[in-house]
Amino acid sequence: MADRGSAKIGVCYYPEHWPEDMWADDARRMHKGGIRRVRIGEFAWSRLEPEFGRSDFGWLARAIDTLHAEDLGVILGTPTATPPKWLVDRMPDMFAIDLHGRPRGFGSRRHYCFSHAGYRRECARIVTALGAAFGQHPGVVGWQIDNEYGCHDTVRSYSESALLGFRHWLKERYGTVAALNEAWGNVFWSMEYRNFEEIDLPVGAVTETNPAHRTDFDRYSSDQVRELNRVQTDILRVLSPGRDIVHNFMTFHSDFDHYDVMEDLDVATWDSYPLGSLDVFPADPAHKAAFARTGDPDMQAFHHDLYRGAGRGRFGIMEQQPGPVNWADYNADPLPGLVRLWGLEGIAHGAELVSYFRWRQTPFAQEQFHAGLILPNNETDRAYAEVQQLARDLIKLGDLGATAPAKVAIVNSYEARWFLAIQPQGKNFSYVEQIFSIYRALRAMGLDIDIVGPEANLSGYALAVLPSMPYVPPLLAASLEGFEGQLLVMPRTGSRTASHRIPTNLAPGPLAGLLGIKVTRVESFRPHSAIRLVFEGEHCTFDRWREFVTVTEADIVARVDDGRPALTRKGNAWYLAGWPDATLLALILRRLAGEAGLALESFAPGLRTRRRGHWCFLFNYGPEVADISGIVRGELVIGEHVLPVGGAAVWREGPGN
Amino acid sequence: MADRGSAKIGVCYYPEHWPEDMWADDARRMHKGGIRRVRIGEFAWSRLEPEFGRSDFGWLARAIDTLHAEDLGVILGTPTATPPKWLVDRMPDMFAIDLHGRPRGFGSRRHYCFSHAGYRRECARIVTALGAAFGQHPGVVGWQIDNEYGCHDTVRSYSESALLGFRHWLKERYGTVAALNEAWGNVFWSMEYRNFEEIDLPVGAVTETNPAHRTDFDRYSSDQVRELNRVQTDILRVLSPGRDIVHNFMTFHSDFDHYDVMEDLDVATWDSYPLGSLDVFPADPAHKAAFARTGDPDMQAFHHDLYRGAGRGRFGIMEQQPGPVNWADYNADPLPGLVRLWGLEGIAHGAELVSYFRWRQTPFAQEQFHAGLILPNNETDRAYAEVQQLARDLIKLGDLGATAPAKVAIVNSYEARWFLAIQPQGKNFSYVEQIFSIYRALRAMGLDIDIVGPEANLSGYALAVLPSMPYVPPLLAASLEGFEGQLLVMPRTGSRTASHRIPTNLAPGPLAGLLGIKVTRVESFRPHSAIRLVFEGEHCTFDRWREFVTVTEADIVARVDDGRPALTRKGNAWYLAGWPDATLLALILRRLAGEAGLALESFAPGLRTRRRGHWCFLFNYGPEVADISGIVRGELVIGEHVLPVGGAAVWREGPGN
Amino acid sequence: MADRGSAKIGVCYYPEHWPEDMWADDARRMHKGGIRRVRIGEFAWSRLEPEFGRSDFGWLARAIDTLHAEDLGVILGTPTATPPKWLVDRMPDMFAIDLHGRPRGFGSRRHYCFSHAGYRRECARIVTALGAAFGQHPGVVGWQIDNEYGCHDTVRSYSESALLGFRHWLKERYGTVAALNEAWGNVFWSMEYRNFEEIDLPVGAVTETNPAHRTDFDRYSSDQVRELNRVQTDILRVLSPGRDIVHNFMTFHSDFDHYDVMEDLDVATWDSYPLGSLDVFPADPAHKAAFARTGDPDMQAFHHDLYRGAGRGRFGIMEQQPGPVNWADYNADPLPGLVRLWGLEGIAHGAELVSYFRWRQTPFAQEQFHAGLILPNNETDRAYAEVQQLARDLIKLGDLGATAPAKVAIVNSYEARWFLAIQPQGKNFSYVEQIFSIYRALRAMGLDIDIVGPEANLSGYALAVLPSMPYVPPLLAASLEGFEGQLLVMPRTGSRTASHRIPTNLAPGPLAGLLGIKVTRVESFRPHSAIRLVFEGEHCTFDRWREFVTVTEADIVARVDDGRPALTRKGNAWYLAGWPDATLLALILRRLAGEAGLALESFAPGLRTRRRGHWCFLFNYGPEVADISGIVRGELVIGEHVLPVGGAAVWREGPGN
Ligand SMILES: [Zn+2]
Ligand SMILES: [Zn+2]
Ligand SMILES: [Zn+2]
Repeated sequence: MADRGSAKIGVCYYPEHWPEDMWADDARRMHKGGIRRVRIGEFAWSRLEPEFGRSDFGWLARAIDTLHAEDLGVILGTPTATPPKWLVDRMPDMFAIDLHGRPRGFGSRRHYCFSHAGYRRECARIVTALGAAFGQHPGVVGWQIDNEYGCHDTVRSYSESALLGFRHWLKERYGTVAALNEAWGNVFWSMEYRNFEEIDLPVGAVTETNPAHRTDFDRYSSDQVRELNRVQTDILRVLSPGRDIVHNFMTFHSDFDHYDVMEDLDVATWDSYPLGSLDVFPADPAHKAAFARTGDPDMQAFHHDLYRGAGRGRFGIMEQQPGPVNWADYNADPLPGLVRLWGLEGIAHGAELVSYFRWRQTPFAQEQFHAGLILPNNETDRAYAEVQQLARDLIKLGDLGATAPAKVAIVNSYEARWFLAIQPQGKNFSYVEQIFSIYRALRAMGLDIDIVGPEANLSGYALAVLPSMPYVPPLLAASLEGFEGQLLVMPRTGSRTASHRIPTNLAPGPLAGLLGIKVTRVESFRPHSAIRLVFEGEHCTFDRWREFVTVTEADIVARVDDGRPALTRKGNAWYLAGWPDATLLALILRRLAGEAGLALESFAPGLRTRRRGHWCFLFNYGPEVADISGIVRGELVIGEHVLPVGGAAVWREGPGN
Repeated sequence: MADRGSAKIGVCYYPEHWPEDMWADDARRMHKGGIRRVRIGEFAWSRLEPEFGRSDFGWLARAIDTLHAEDLGVILGTPTATPPKWLVDRMPDMFAIDLHGRPRGFGSRRHYCFSHAGYRRECARIVTALGAAFGQHPGVVGWQIDNEYGCHDTVRSYSESALLGFRHWLKERYGTVAALNEAWGNVFWSMEYRNFEEIDLPVGAVTETNPAHRTDFDRYSSDQVRELNRVQTDILRVLSPGRDIVHNFMTFHSDFDHYDVMEDLDVATWDSYPLGSLDVFPADPAHKAAFARTGDPDMQAFHHDLYRGAGRGRFGIMEQQPGPVNWADYNADPLPGLVRLWGLEGIAHGAELVSYFRWRQTPFAQEQFHAGLILPNNETDRAYAEVQQLARDLIKLGDLGATAPAKVAIVNSYEARWFLAIQPQGKNFSYVEQIFSIYRALRAMGLDIDIVGPEANLSGYALAVLPSMPYVPPLLAASLEGFEGQLLVMPRTGSRTASHRIPTNLAPGPLAGLLGIKVTRVESFRPHSAIRLVFEGEHCTFDRWREFVTVTEADIVARVDDGRPALTRKGNAWYLAGWPDATLLALILRRLAGEAGLALESFAPGLRTRRRGHWCFLFNYGPEVADISGIVRGELVIGEHVLPVGGAAVWREGPGN
Repeated sequence: MADRGSAKIGVCYYPEHWPEDMWADDARRMHKGGIRRVRIGEFAWSRLEPEFGRSDFGWLARAIDTLHAEDLGVILGTPTATPPKWLVDRMPDMFAIDLHGRPRGFGSRRHYCFSHAGYRRECARIVTALGAAFGQHPGVVGWQIDNEYGCHDTVRSYSESALLGFRHWLKERYGTVAALNEAWGNVFWSMEYRNFEEIDLPVGAVTETNPAHRTDFDRYSSDQVRELNRVQTDILRVLSPGRDIVHNFMTFHSDFDHYDVMEDLDVATWDSYPLGSLDVFPADPAHKAAFARTGDPDMQAFHHDLYRGAGRGRFGIMEQQPGPVNWADYNADPLPGLVRLWGLEGIAHGAELVSYFRWRQTPFAQEQFHAGLILPNNETDRAYAEVQQLARDLIKLGDLGATAPAKVAIVNSYEARWFLAIQPQGKNFSYVEQIFSIYRALRAMGLDIDIVGPEANLSGYALAVLPSMPYVPPLLAASLEGFEGQLLVMPRTGSRTASHRIPTNLAPGPLAGLLGIKVTRVESFRPHSAIRLVFEGEHCTFDRWREFVTVTEADIVARVDDGRPALTRKGNAWYLAGWPDATLLALILRRLAGEAGLALESFAPGLRTRRRGHWCFLFNYGPEVADISGIVRGELVIGEHVLPVGGAAVWREGPGN
C-alpha cells in the first residue's frame, strides 16, 4: 500500500456508476486532492459478467488505465460480496439461511452462504479471471478480497450446506461421536447422538441449546470465512505477485476470528465510521450527545491498535467517513476538522493508508444519504478540502517512522466473545464493552497500547491486561506463566475448557497456579444494582458481575464491602473478581501501571495522544478548546498551543521522552 | 348522503347479528334518536352466500324494508372485507403474504391479497348480485365499498399474485429492463436485471433493498387498492344509478393514495375514534393523559379537512366512537358531551353524515368491549342521549350552508409518506407528525384550513404550506411557481426524483428557481439533541433534522446558531431548513400568516373554532372550563358563554367577520 | 413422600452424569447432610434406551440400590420431557409447532406436541418398562411424571395433530357446527363454518381471532396436558402400587389447569426459585433491588398455599434453589441463611418434601451456571451446610402436626387467566399480579391463607376473595350464594359466559342477584393515569381498570371522585369496581377481615408468619434486622428475639391463640 515510514491517502471509487467521460477529470481531481490510492471494483460483478457466459472487462481496464495515468495506485476489489442475479438464479441454494429458516435473498448485498461449495467455485472463477486480466497491471498495487465480511449478520448461516459442512467439521475434530457426546456433555438432557448424521445446527430448539454445540458452530462458521477468503488469496498470490492483499474489516465485529483470516492477508484494513458507530454503540445517551459530531475519543484508536495487531504491524483505513452517513439511527454532521483529524489519528497509530469512502456521493440506490468528497452534482463537498489538508500534513511530517511496540498490551480474543455471548449469565455482560473500557482507561493515562491476539508473544510488555477469557488455550497459559510484566486478569478467565465445560479444578482453570486463587461462585447484577467497595480511599462498585474467590496462594489487595476478595495478587499476577466501574478500573490500572514503572498523564476528557517514530500526536475530541502548552514537549510542526475541538497537534519528541 | 347544506345522523347496524323480531323496534328507536342513515351489510357475506352456489338475500331485503319503513336511508356495504371460509378454501392462494412469507389467513377479516385476480372476480360476482338485488331499492341511498382498506397492514402483500402483477406493472412503466436498471441505479450493488422476470418483490434481502424498488412497489400496491375498488364501483354505477358510493377511510393511514381511490367515489367518509387514535399516536405521555377522555383537540378536525379535500368537498364520518373502544392499548371512557361534540365538530367542518359505530354493543366475538348506543341487554347506553342532543342541535341550526374554501392550504401527499418511510435517514422523521404539527399550529391561530392533494389548484389561497415532499411532480412545481400567496416549503422537499434519485441539481430540485437555494447536506438528530436558533427573540431549536443550505437568490431570514441559514425567502417563497420545535413553527407560521394578511387569534390550549356557512362553531377540549365571551361575536344559538370541557357553542357570524 | 406430620429433605441427582464409582460416596454424603429423598432419572431416556430397540436399565437399578443402601427413598422421574434423537427422527411430526408454523425441534428439552398420538404411545411404552422394572422396588417411594409441564411455553402447539385433535374436541363439545357458530358468534365477521373440518387453529389470521375460538383452544390445550399425564399415571397405578405420583409444577404458570392435572396425582410438588422468579416478575425495579438476595417475601408462600390447595392438602418443593441460578436475566447470590429459610418456610406451610436442585453443579451443557449443594470439583458448596441446619431444625420440631384450614380463602382459576389474556382490554391487566397483590395484602396482616380452586367448598371460611373471574361456573355461583363469610368480588367477575360472550343480563352475570349490581361500562388506564377516591380518609386510586356500576340492591360503601360507585355491598357480598392501588386494597381487606372477626397484625415489611400444627413460624425477608419480642408468644425453639435478615424463628403457640 505504502512504503515503510510513509502513508498514502486513498479514496473509494465506482467508475461503473458514472459516465466514462467523467473518469479522467475524476482522476485529475483525486490527484490534485493529494490522493494516491483508489479502491475500485468490489461491487461490480454484474458489469464484469453481465450474464452467464459473457464477461466484459474492457471498461475496468480503461478505468485502471485512467487512474494509473494520474499516478493513482489501484486497489482492486473482488466482487464476491455481490453476486449478480443470473448467478444466484442458477444456484438458489447458495443463499444463507437465517435463524428462522428463511433464505437471505437477492436485492442488496452479501447474499451468500460461506459454506456453499458451488459459490466458492464461482468466487474462484471470477477471481481467477480478474487476476489473469489485471494481476500484473502496473497500476494495480493491491487487492481487497470481498467486502466487510460479516456485515449485516452474515457469518452464521443455517443452510443445508452449513449443516453438512458442520457435521464434517465435527467429525474431523472429534473422530467419534462418543468423543463428541462426552466433550459436549450430551447426556445432560438426553441429547446424545448415535452418529454425526444425527447432529443438527444449534437452532430451532425449544429452549437454549448446548453451549458446547453453539461454541463449535461459532468456530465452524468462523472457519468458513477464512476458507472462502483463502480460496481467493491462493489464486491471487499466483496471478498477482508482489501486491498486497487486504480485507476491509469492521467496527466491533465479533462473529469470526480476524486473526485467522489475517493469516492469509498482508494488511489489516478497516472501515472507520466514527459518528455512525457511536450512534449504534450501547453507550449512555449523554455520552452519545457529547461526542455526536466528533465520534468517541477512543473508538477509532481502539480499532487502529486492534488491526495493527491483527496485521502484524501493517494496517490501514480502507473506508473513512467524510460527512454524515446513511445507516445509523441518527446521522449527524461531523464538526469541521474531524475528517482530517480521523485520518491523521490513523496515521499516528501507524496506518499506511487512509482511504475515504466515497469519492462522489451516489445519487441513486441504497446509500444516497452517504456523503462523499464530491457532491452528486460534481461540485466538491466540504470533506475534499480536509483531505487536502491531510495531504499537506503528510508532507510536513515527511518520514513518519515506524510504530514502536507499546509498553502495554491488551489481549483480545474472538473466541472469548463467542463464549460470553452464548452464556452471558448476566444480560449486560458484554466483552466489547469491557475490553473497550480497559482500553479507554489506559489511553486516558497517555499510554500507547498494543492490542494483541491470544497467540501473541507478550514478552517485552511492562503491563498486560487479559479481558474475560473463559477458555485460555495452553499456549497462552504458558505465555502468561512466563510473563514478567504486571498482569491483570479479568473475571471469568479460565472458567471454561475448550469444550465449554467448567474445568475440573474450577476457574481460573489453567491459571490457578499463576493467580493463586479458585472461583467457587459467580453472580450478576441488574442495572443500578451493585456491590460496594473502597479502593485507595475511593468509593467504587462492582456492577454487572462479581465472583467469590478463595485465595490459595495470593494476597488480597482489596475486599468488597461484604469482606470477600475483590482484587488479589500473586507476585505480578493480579485478579479482579468483578466488573469494575470506571473509577475502580482507572485506579487499578493506574496502580498496576505504577508497579510496571510506566509514566502516566492525566488528560482532559477529550484529549488523546499517540506516538509514531519520533512524532508525538495530540488530538482534541472536545468538548472544550484546550491549552496544550503544558503537554507539548517539543516544537509544534502541526497545530498551535491552543487546540480547538477537532484540532490536531504534532511535535517531535525530545530525547528526554 | 344528505342534501346540500344539511347533514344526517347515522348508525352502523348488523341485523344479521340479532333475531329478526328485534329489527322493527331497533328501527323505531333509531328514528326516535334522530338517526336517518344506517350502514349495514359490510361483513355479512357468509349470510348472503352461506355456501358455494347458494345465496340468501331474503333477510337483507327484509332488513332494508324494515329500516326504510322508519325513514332510514340505507348505506349498503359490499362484504368484500370478509370472504367466507368456503370461498377462501376454494382459492387458498388468495391470502395476502406477509413480510416473512406467511399467509395472512382466515379467522378475522381483510384476509385477501389485492392483486389476486380470482378474488377480484369473486368481488365482482357478489357486488353484481347485490347491485342487481338492491341497487334500485328506494331505501338504499348509498353504497360503501369494502371496509377500511389497509386496516391491519393489509395493503402490501408479498404473494405470487403480487409478484406477477408487479412485474407487469413495471413493464408498463419502464418498457425495457434497461430503462428500469438505469432509473433505479441497479448498477450500485450489481443489482441489475436482464429481464422483468428476474425482478423479485423488495423483501427477504440481506439488508435494505433499493429505495427505488420499494418506491415502485409502494406505488404498485396502492394501485391495486384503487383497482379492486374500481371493480366494484364500475358495477354499482350501472346497477345503482344515483346513489352515492363511498369508502370508510381511517385515521393517519398512509399505505395507499386516498386521492386515487377517491377518483371513483362520491363522498370521502372516515372512521373517527378520537380516544383510541390518540392512545396509539406517538404523542408524549403527558399529552395523552391530558386528553385521554376528550381526544386530541386537532386530530378529528385534521381528518375532517383532509377527507373534505379528498372528497372534493363531500365528506362524512362513517364510524364515530360512542364510548370506550376495544382496540387501543388502553381504552378510556369519553367525558360526557364528547360523543355529541365530535359529531357537531364534524358538521362544522362540512360533514354531511355523522354515523355512530355501532347501534348495539356486540355480546360476542372480537369487539365485545366496543361500546354502542345500546347495551347488549338492549337498554340504551349513555351515547344514545348525546346523539339525540346532536339531532336537536341540527334542528336549531337549520340550513347549515356550504363550507367555504379556506384561506390556508396544506398540501398532503401519500407518495411523500412512502418516500420518507423508505429512507427516513433519522429514525424519528415522521411525515404524519410533521403535517399534523403544521395543522395544529395553524388551527391554534383560529384559522380554517384546507388540506389538499398534490394535484389541487392552489390559486386563491393566501397561505400554503408544503410539508416535506421528496418528489415534487412537475404539475405541482408549476402550480407553486404561479402561486401568489405566501408559501412555506418544508425541508427535504424536492430532494428526490420520481425514481427515488437525487436530482442532478440537488435539492430542492424543481423548486430551485422558486426558492433560490440549494441543499448540499443534511443531518438528523437523536431525541434530546438539537441545534439552537433565536427567532423573533425566542429561543428555539431544530430537532430531528436540519439542512445545509446555499443561498443562490434568496434572503436569509433566520440563521441557526452556527451561522447557517435556517429560514430563507425569495419573494413569497419561504424555505425552512430544519424540523422546527413547536415554538419556532408557530412563530414562522404566524409571520407568514401576517404577511398573507390573515387575521389571527390566540386561543386557550383546548379551544378550537371552525366556520361553516354563516355559522361559527367553538369547541372546548379542555382541560379547563372556558369563558368565551371575548371570542363569541354574535348571538349563541347553541351553548353558553361559560363553556364546559366537552362543550360546544355556535353563533351566527356577524357581517363584520 | 413423608409420613403425616413430618417432612423430608430431598435432592435432585443425576447419576448418569457422573462416573459410577462416585455414586456410593454421593449417597453417603447425602445421608450425612440430612437428605432422605432423591429424585432421579427424569432426563435419562437416552441412557435408558440408547437406540431403537435396545434398552439398558442396569445402571439405573444400580443407582437406586446405591441410594437405597443409604436409606434414601427414590422418586423416579419418567423421562418423557427429553425423548432422544433416534426417537424423534422416527416421528419428526411429533414436535410442537410454534405460532409462526415452525417446528420446535431437538436440541434442548420439551420437544414434543402434547396432541401427538404416536408420542403418547412412546411415553406409555417407556413408562410401562420403567414401572415393570422398578415399580415395586423397595427403594422407590414415588414417581414424578415428566418435568415442568409448560416450561418454555410448550403447552400450546399449532401442529397438524393439534388441529385434528381440536376439531374432534370441538365436535364432542358442541355436537353440531351450527351450535358452535352460535356459541362463538361466528356471524360477526362472516367467520361461520359449514363443518368441523373447516375450523383452523386460532393462529395466522390477519388480526385478532374470535376470543371464543381462542378460549376453546386454550381449554383443549390444557386437556392434552392432563391426558398425557394420565397416560402415565394409569400405567404406574397398576405397576407401582402404594407409591405417590407427583409432578413438579412451576412459578406463576398459567397455561394449563393444574387442578385438572392434579386429579390424577397424589402430591402437588413445585419448583421454587425465589431469586430467579423475582428477577423475571413484572415488579418495579426498586422492589426487585430490595429483595434481590432474599426473594420476594410472599412469592414462595403464595405457591406453597396454591399447591397445598391443588394437592388437596399434600404438597412439597421438588426443586429448591440452593444458590445462583442460570436462567434469569440477572442471577444474584442468596444471602446466607436463605437456602435454609426457604426450606423451613415450605415446611411451615405444610410441605412434606423440600428437595434441593441439584446435588452437584453440572460442569457441562446448559445449566453450568446453576449452583448445587456440591461444587463441580466435588467440594461441598455453601448450601450443603444450610441443608444440614434445616435437618437439625426438623429434629428440633419433631412432629410437625397438620396444616389446619385457614380462615381466609382466595379462589384461583386458570380459566380466568386465559380469558383475561385473550382480551385484556387494558394492556396491563394481569391476573397473576392481581391475585398476588391480594395474597400479599392479606398475608401482611398476619393471616394464614388457603388458595383454592373454583370447585372448592368454601364453607367454613370467614373471608373469601374472588379475583377477576370473567366466567363464573354454575357450581361456584351456587357456592357463593350460600357462602356465609365476607366475600370480596373483584372487577370483571361474571362478565363473560362459558362461550366467551357477554351474559344477557350483563356483568356480573350469575352473581347479579348475590351482589345487587349491574356493570354497564368499563375503562382501562395507561400507567400513571388513574382515577382518585378517598377511602377511610386515605387518598387512593383505581388504576389499570374501573367499571361503571349500577346498583340494583346493594349499598354504596365508597365512591370514586366522579361520584360513581367504587365499592358496593349487599349483605356479606362486596364488589370492587376497579383495580385498587396497594393502599386501597389493604384498607378494604382490613375492613372485610374486621367484619369477618379475624384478628389482624401489622408486621414490618419483610416479616411473615405461618402456623402449622402447634408451631408458629416467623421469617425475616429484610431489609432490616427485626426485634420480634413483641410478636413471639411462646418459647422459641428455633431462632432468637433479634431476627437477622434471612433468619427464622419458631415457637409453640400458646392456648390463647
Ligand atoms: Zn503527482
Ligand atoms: Zn321521521
Ligand atoms: Zn440414617
